[in-house]
Amino acid sequence: MANYKVGRQSFRLPNPPVITAWASVAGKKESQGPLGSFFDVTGQDPYWGQKTWEQAEKRMQQLALETLAKKAGISTRDFNLVFSGDLLNQCIGSSFSLRNTGIPHLGLYGACSTMSESLLLAAMTVGGGFARNAVAMTSSHFASSERQYRFPLGYGGQRTPTAQWTVTGSGAALVEEAGSGPRITGCTIGTVRDLGIQDANNMGAAMAPAAFDTIKAHLEDFSRTPEDFDLIVTGDLGQLGKDALLMLGQEEGLSLGGKIADCGTMIFDATRQDVHSGGSGCGCSAVTLCGYLLDKVKKGELRRILFCGTGALLSPVSTQQGLPIPGVCHGVSIEGG
Amino acid sequence: MANYKVGRQSFRLPNPPVITAWASVAGKKESQGPLGSFFDVTGQDPYWGQKTWEQAEKRMQQLALETLAKKAGISTRDFNLVFSGDLLNQCIGSSFSLRNTGIPHLGLYGACSTMSESLLLAAMTVGGGFARNAVAMTSSHFASSERQYRFPLGYGGQRTPTAQWTVTGSGAALVEEAGSGPRITGCTIGTVRDLGIQDANNMGAAMAPAAFDTIKAHLEDFSRTPEDFDLIVTGDLGQLGKDALLMLGQEEGLSLGGKIADCGTMIFDATRQDVHSGGSGCGCSAVTLCGYLLDKVKKGELRRILFCGTGALLSPVSTQQGLPIPGVCHGVSIEGG
Repeated sequence: MANYKVGRQSFRLPNPPVITAWASVAGKKESQGPLGSFFDVTGQDPYWGQKTWEQAEKRMQQLALETLAKKAGISTRDFNLVFSGDLLNQCIGSSFSLRNTGIPHLGLYGACSTMSESLLLAAMTVGGGFARNAVAMTSSHFASSERQYRFPLGYGGQRTPTAQWTVTGSGAALVEEAGSGPRITGCTIGTVRDLGIQDANNMGAAMAPAAFDTIKAHLEDFSRTPEDFDLIVTGDLGQLGKDALLMLGQEEGLSLGGKIADCGTMIFDATRQDVHSGGSGCGCSAVTLCGYLLDKVKKGELRRILFCGTGALLSPVSTQQGLPIPGVCHGVSIEGG
Repeated sequence: MANYKVGRQSFRLPNPPVITAWASVAGKKESQGPLGSFFDVTGQDPYWGQKTWEQAEKRMQQLALETLAKKAGISTRDFNLVFSGDLLNQCIGSSFSLRNTGIPHLGLYGACSTMSESLLLAAMTVGGGFARNAVAMTSSHFASSERQYRFPLGYGGQRTPTAQWTVTGSGAALVEEAGSGPRITGCTIGTVRDLGIQDANNMGAAMAPAAFDTIKAHLEDFSRTPEDFDLIVTGDLGQLGKDALLMLGQEEGLSLGGKIADCGTMIFDATRQDVHSGGSGCGCSAVTLCGYLLDKVKKGELRRILFCGTGALLSPVSTQQGLPIPGVCHGVSIEGG
């Protein structure tokens, strides 16, 4: 039997699957940010023509999938399989966007790590020959997340300095066995890490240890150093979580400085968009990857990146029960075609 | 590149991964049912020594994982990867059971189809050479499910005749590239089906169309008939959902009668356990498979089964917003070693 397992947590893809197309859908605030001009579809209506924010999220996923098919020059019926998940209870953004489409679907829950989790599984599925192509997709919505995890928006609660702003958006990537585009060459599966952070308004701190562990595991498993990457991109640590990650690196003698970029600090302009510690949510890393980073890899401006979606495995139930917030992070190595 | 894709929704495993060990953990009511004597661990305390029902579910998953390692004669640290998910918001049964264990984890959301979804992905991961072994695991709990999806238990709501009883239990299976035990030879990935059922107390009806679609797709993709299986086992349709599935078969000219068994009708004795339409929940198919069915396959009493976990992609949010309940079902073909 083939053996592509590398080290404790990783696997390589000797016939690297290709990301042949990608699509991004983003909301109003995101369209006004530094990456605003890169998104395929932007919308000014927080309801996206739907009755509820949750259905708006479903609509964004539908738009991402349709845009992806269009950019790939195929029909959505040609997708062999969609890996997707979101932050809503029971992942209704994903299941409602795919209902009655006839597209095979495997649902995921990885919180804000879902873009890298779905990409990793799509690469495995296609790289292993189990499908000709697979889609990796996720979404988040500021308003549906706030009311689910924190306070009703109408309450007008004051946000703490450590809070992050959930990105309204959806990203989707098509992974195929052949074609032109960035290639997925190796992946690292994260473990669930919990150092006891209990503040639902400080998710960067909750996720930083998981991000550090996965980056370290990837470098060890593949005998690489940070210098082997143009960028190591974390999902949504925000400014404080990014600082915590760099500090963990210093403590453990692993110099990450200069290589780390965080989607949460890239997507908004902290000086004028009042987002406190930065962006967050499944959509944060999804639209940054599918709106901005993959284009850079395609153009050769980035040769190899380690894309590390970071998830705070937070639940209102566990929070109310006084439990801490475990974190998880999955790493996907993406290289120029 | 290898091509194991079969038909529209399926893939085959030419080097079939082996289910080398399995473990089941079940609650009091389940231990009093027809399968009660088959479970590895049973508990009389609905809290399993924890402070909350949600943490009890975490504890059952921990016990399932520990029992699995013991039965496999290895340490939990030897597990390469755990695929798991549950019904709790943000899948906290799974993430809290695995936190700080150091075991790589990919979180799933497939509602009550999670046992087959996780088994399918474990088979793909091991069959494709991306890991030496992988665990498929899930759980559910009557009390945590009732308060999350329906009414607080203290309210004493009357259950409708179509209602099902969520199984308190957890099941886990170890899939390895070699060894002795039942083999996974082919899988069919489900699509999300929604025929407009809106009653959170009639999930059998919501899931039956998805179950029918996946069984039909499996038979078509592999050019098989129901006669090729000793049993086609659905996850938790209950008596009414099973009747609906058989009716759909008749309408479409596919005779399933005599081959269909539903874990929801096997796990409780409807005549004396007052469960109305039968058992349900991720744990229902998980403990029936990992407590009862896999032993039957191992002993040669069942030669080939199609295990079809069925999921109602129900959310209290979508229910409150007046939306219907989409269903999904994934099929895993399991054969004697």
